[in-house]
Amino acid sequence: MSPAEQINLILQTAHPAAYRALSSFGRQIYLPKGVPLQAAQAANARWNATIGQCTDDQGEAMPLAMMAERISDVDPKEAFLYTPQGGRKDLRAAWREHILSEADSKEEAQETLLSLPVTCAGLTHGLSVAAELFIDKDTEVFLPTPRWGNYDLIFGIRAQGKIHSYNFMLPSSQGMQLNIVDLIAQIKGAIAEGAKKIFLVLNFPNNPTGYNPTLKEADELVAALSGLFEGPEEPTEKPMITILLDEAYHGMEWEDDCCRQSLFFRLSKLDREHFLICKVDGATKEMFFFGGRIGFLSFATSSAASEVLEEKAIACIRSSISALSSIGQALLYEALCAEDLLEQQEKNRTVVRERYQVLKRELSQTKLSYWPFNSAFFAVVNVAGDPEEVRHRLLERGVGVVSIPSAGALRISYSTVPADMLPEMVQILEDTIINGS
Amino acid sequence: MSPAEQINLILQTAHPAAYRALSSFGRQIYLPKGVPLQAAQAANARWNATIGQCTDDQGEAMPLAMMAERISDVDPKEAFLYTPQGGRKDLRAAWREHILSEADSKEEAQETLLSLPVTCAGLTHGLSVAAELFIDKDTEVFLPTPRWGNYDLIFGIRAQGKIHSYNFMLPSSQGMQLNIVDLIAQIKGAIAEGAKKIFLVLNFPNNPTGYNPTLKEADELVAALSGLFEGPEEPTEKPMITILLDEAYHGMEWEDDCCRQSLFFRLSKLDREHFLICKVDGATKEMFFFGGRIGFLSFATSSAASEVLEEKAIACIRSSISALSSIGQALLYEALCAEDLLEQQEKNRTVVRERYQVLKRELSQTKLSYWPFNSAFFAVVNVAGDPEEVRHRLLERGVGVVSIPSAGALRISYSTVPADMLPEMVQILEDTIINGS
Repeated sequence: MSPAEQINLILQTAHPAAYRALSSFGRQIYLPKGVPLQAAQAANARWNATIGQCTDDQGEAMPLAMMAERISDVDPKEAFLYTPQGGRKDLRAAWREHILSEADSKEEAQETLLSLPVTCAGLTHGLSVAAELFIDKDTEVFLPTPRWGNYDLIFGIRAQGKIHSYNFMLPSSQGMQLNIVDLIAQIKGAIAEGAKKIFLVLNFPNNPTGYNPTLKEADELVAALSGLFEGPEEPTEKPMITILLDEAYHGMEWEDDCCRQSLFFRLSKLDREHFLICKVDGATKEMFFFGGRIGFLSFATSSAASEVLEEKAIACIRSSISALSSIGQALLYEALCAEDLLEQQEKNRTVVRERYQVLKRELSQTKLSYWPFNSAFFAVVNVAGDPEEVRHRLLERGVGVVSIPSAGALRISYSTVPADMLPEMVQILEDTIINGS
Repeated sequence: MSPAEQINLILQTAHPAAYRALSSFGRQIYLPKGVPLQAAQAANARWNATIGQCTDDQGEAMPLAMMAERISDVDPKEAFLYTPQGGRKDLRAAWREHILSEADSKEEAQETLLSLPVTCAGLTHGLSVAAELFIDKDTEVFLPTPRWGNYDLIFGIRAQGKIHSYNFMLPSSQGMQLNIVDLIAQIKGAIAEGAKKIFLVLNFPNNPTGYNPTLKEADELVAALSGLFEGPEEPTEKPMITILLDEAYHGMEWEDDCCRQSLFFRLSKLDREHFLICKVDGATKEMFFFGGRIGFLSFATSSAASEVLEEKAIACIRSSISALSSIGQALLYEALCAEDLLEQQEKNRTVVRERYQVLKRELSQTKLSYWPFNSAFFAVVNVAGDPEEVRHRLLERGVGVVSIPSAGALRISYSTVPADMLPEMVQILEDTIINGS
């Protein structure tokens, strides 16, 4: 039996649906017992001649002096040498605790199935690893629309999935609302048509809308997903549903009725006979560490199945980028261990929340049409006509925004605009979009 | 015409062979004019509300205080905010100069076709991006053997190429010698059998053998490659040959007869009607920055063709990891600008060279059978019997090495062993391997 077949067999027993969810590549990939394993076995050898890095006669890192001087407060080992495949074990354990700290109770934390998070080079990397492991050409991939443009590269051009766009929100008598009914109907339609594998991407808080489900909506969504296989039209061969939860903007929920707990807790309770839940999160936004490139990919499954999925994810990373930024991991690990982490995060969030509140207030006093927003860094404003044309006109007046042609709208990223500059910006938006001046 | 077709058309005109070399994915990938482009256009807008990161009211980075304190000598912007897709332009330009500084003359530097290097998250990433851009299932991929185990994941399982293993060295009357004749014969064989695309990986200095071609061998190899399409058996439809030069250990050539200049200069002179040359290099080993994760992928072609290949490589990176480590780029850029860079590198290289010299001397005084080595961090020692079994016996005696079952040998990485500990290590190797004690 090949090494890949060996771990596949474990997964087939421990979480059959997760095995079925694997792409052709996902089934083939495994971590060879090569240099990293042999180096780990020799970690305490008197003569460790296993690994292609350099250490001095005391076993310390040998950085160029000028580089070391610039980060003299960081142990050179933690910045200049390699970290283990999959990331530092202490960091991965600390991030797992960080996730579980959101549980409603100690019991919920204990009962929640959560793998050891695999460290990735940022959140995009977590998304692309999940895409590689679970998407084939015939996988039905459901992506929200409007969406971050990179989703089309990651899940479409790169992973070659069959893309279905579902509306993230739909108009109702109360204005735009989170779309649950239509999303479920679309997935049921795919099931009825004989879909074998479904890959659903949920992005909460959402980019570009800046919307996060309320508690009520979160419960409704998970209940609706749970009911996908119920009812009289129950199909004979049920497909497998992989849900990828993209939580890049997690922790940036600005309203009290937002579901602040990661949706992962609710999703992880879905029947494992049909579902595999993947969570992508990380330090980029949540820890304001945009340049650090540290994200995580986690799975909701048993420890036996987790070990296999972790190995496959790590092998995927080894074959695409090998090791991760050491200093990024070191700084994040220290932050997670700091007693005042929450205070420091909150200090930054207060700045962004104030910008959110000012923008919301100012928009409400205009004739602009905009989508509901309560989270993350964004608001979406509708325009009549070509958004690209409006964007260029705004640029001429000193306002840089992003056009969303598919939605006939503009994305306003308020996280980079001082609160006291927002009123004038909104005035220019109104002048340009409504008055056409 | 789609955006991908537009840039493909440019490439078809500017370097037709490079267009033919592209994989199916490589033909489809392009960089959408999305957030990064719109953000770049708004860089100087008074209200820049384009990008999903956070800046304070002065436009500065907003790191968590505890992270910023640890690297207080680095401008927070350069560590905590995003860098442009493809990497910092100043860094890319500086790395290009760094490569060209090896030219034999000012004229050679000016005449050498070299794209702006695309920054990657380490050298593995450069290899995997090249593999994605140029390898399909029917691409004939020539990999040296023995080789770094990750090559099989990158070029085989990930890229799904048709792998041909060529012997890096072959026995001769003078012992093991660089294999040129047999490699060329294998490629000619593939051409004769109607191969459409050939992808040849050259790894100099080589891992695991620690061998780098001499000047004479470098000239012979390039002449032999150049002659691939000559002779009476000239095929009617000539395949396209992509050469990927993996120079992870460049700069670590310890003997005066080694070809110290990057082979890229010689390879870039090959006929562009048949060849596309890619170069992967970076800071990992060359700048002793193992944890920094900064590598580069460059192409030998005209500026028009380079722009297309750079865009495709950057799109590939955007869809796999998006941005790169900011602080890694910042530290490397500073190092490249430092006047004493060469001295600082040489200081470290002197330590490794001394270990090389001691190991070489000690090995020569044993009965051990080992491969010629003159570069990088490695030596390969032959064993009778199962290398895994010998490795475990060595581990019990405190010596950690890496087994190479395919070559019946062990890889000794001397870069992490103090020079004064090497004689005893070699003694244990001899005792264990020769005397079986």
